[in-house]
Amino acid sequence: MSIDPNTNIEISAFKWVPDFAQGMVRDMRIRWALEEIGQPYEAVLYDATQPRDADYRQWQPFGQVPAFDDGNVRLFESGAILLYLGEQDERLMPRSPQAKWETTTWLIAALNSVEPMLMTIVMYDIFHRDKDWATAARPAALELAEARLKSLSDALAGKDWLTGQFSIADIMMVTVLRNIKHTDIINGFPKLAAYQKRGEERPAFKRAMKAQMAPFAEHEPQPA
Amino acid sequence: MSIDPNTNIEISAFKWVPDFAQGMVRDMRIRWALEEIGQPYEAVLYDATQPRDADYRQWQPFGQVPAFDDGNVRLFESGAILLYLGEQDERLMPRSPQAKWETTTWLIAALNSVEPMLMTIVMYDIFHRDKDWATAARPAALELAEARLKSLSDALAGKDWLTGQFSIADIMMVTVLRNIKHTDIINGFPKLAAYQKRGEERPAFKRAMKAQMAPFAEHEPQPA
Repeated sequence: MSIDPNTNIEISAFKWVPDFAQGMVRDMRIRWALEEIGQPYEAVLYDATQPRDADYRQWQPFGQVPAFDDGNVRLFESGAILLYLGEQDERLMPRSPQAKWETTTWLIAALNSVEPMLMTIVMYDIFHRDKDWATAARPAALELAEARLKSLSDALAGKDWLTGQFSIADIMMVTVLRNIKHTDIINGFPKLAAYQKRGEERPAFKRAMKAQMAPFAEHEPQPA
Repeated sequence: MSIDPNTNIEISAFKWVPDFAQGMVRDMRIRWALEEIGQPYEAVLYDATQPRDADYRQWQPFGQVPAFDDGNVRLFESGAILLYLGEQDERLMPRSPQAKWETTTWLIAALNSVEPMLMTIVMYDIFHRDKDWATAARPAALELAEARLKSLSDALAGKDWLTGQFSIADIMMVTVLRNIKHTDIINGFPKLAAYQKRGEERPAFKRAMKAQMAPFAEHEPQPA
């Protein structure tokens, strides 16, 4: 099974975001998956500097991006959208039960056992960088994040990709690891640094990045 | 399709955990789902006070519980295990594509858009309660958590369950909301408080709770 090439896929994304978020917004995950399988899509762009309206919240109740609509299903959460795409194209998720569920497992591990620990560091370093408590809180957060990265690095030993073949689990994990690219934490885990680089060097990743970045230049706020 | 009643399901759980974690360990989610469909299982108990060994980390690389094995697949992450069970029994996840993917969406939303914000509060209140920085950091975390709970409450308006029928999305979201039961935050969102209570009053929830708690009394550490 693969996606009907005549399907009209729409995803939501932002017109512009500040520097630290450029290339990091989560529509990257969906763009990357769609580029891997050569599936066209349309990005519906929203103004990140304004609250999302009630109409958008019918599509995405938290007001985040991405949301997804292909005429068959309408959903949100990058993890759910990747699972949906994976179920439709075996280049994104293998078909044997054990391999399929291992892929699902690692995608969820990225979202719940790794990303929250990395986002705590992002919160302290970027969103609250001017607060003394953020500086004081950081060492405990770093310790927890590094423990998770150590386990992840051990689990990846000897493998190019989390489940042996490239999949949505890797799209998720690589984009999760990129959250802390403002730090050198990942360099403490050479296997993970190499894994992240392997992901970022895929042509589909590069095309997805270019597509996310394209509107930002055009919509950059002008000084008043 | 439903689970072969002769399948031997094994999940990992803990012999004993401190008071604050009793009834909260994530094997609750799997026990609850299995109780909903009347599926027997065996809990393989580990000592939470000792590091998990290399054998266990082959099953669960982060050393957490639950991990799952039914002889067909071997996986971990409560979210992935619930999705696996949902795919096998429509009492846990409806079958129409839109309903199935909405269920998946809400399960992931619970894990990535709600739980991390609530766990930050748990970290400050429980794991770092003696630190001045935790007290100073809490208001910003509370603001973010409450924003997510407000969106969730709005999305739930008029519905008993997230997708209309009870599903694995509700098992996940109710157990996620229970993370902050040491606070009165949820009472600021009466729809969510009622939703959590609806979940906790299900007979399957109560049986799962009893099953998780049973070994704790037996294995409670004795004063030296």
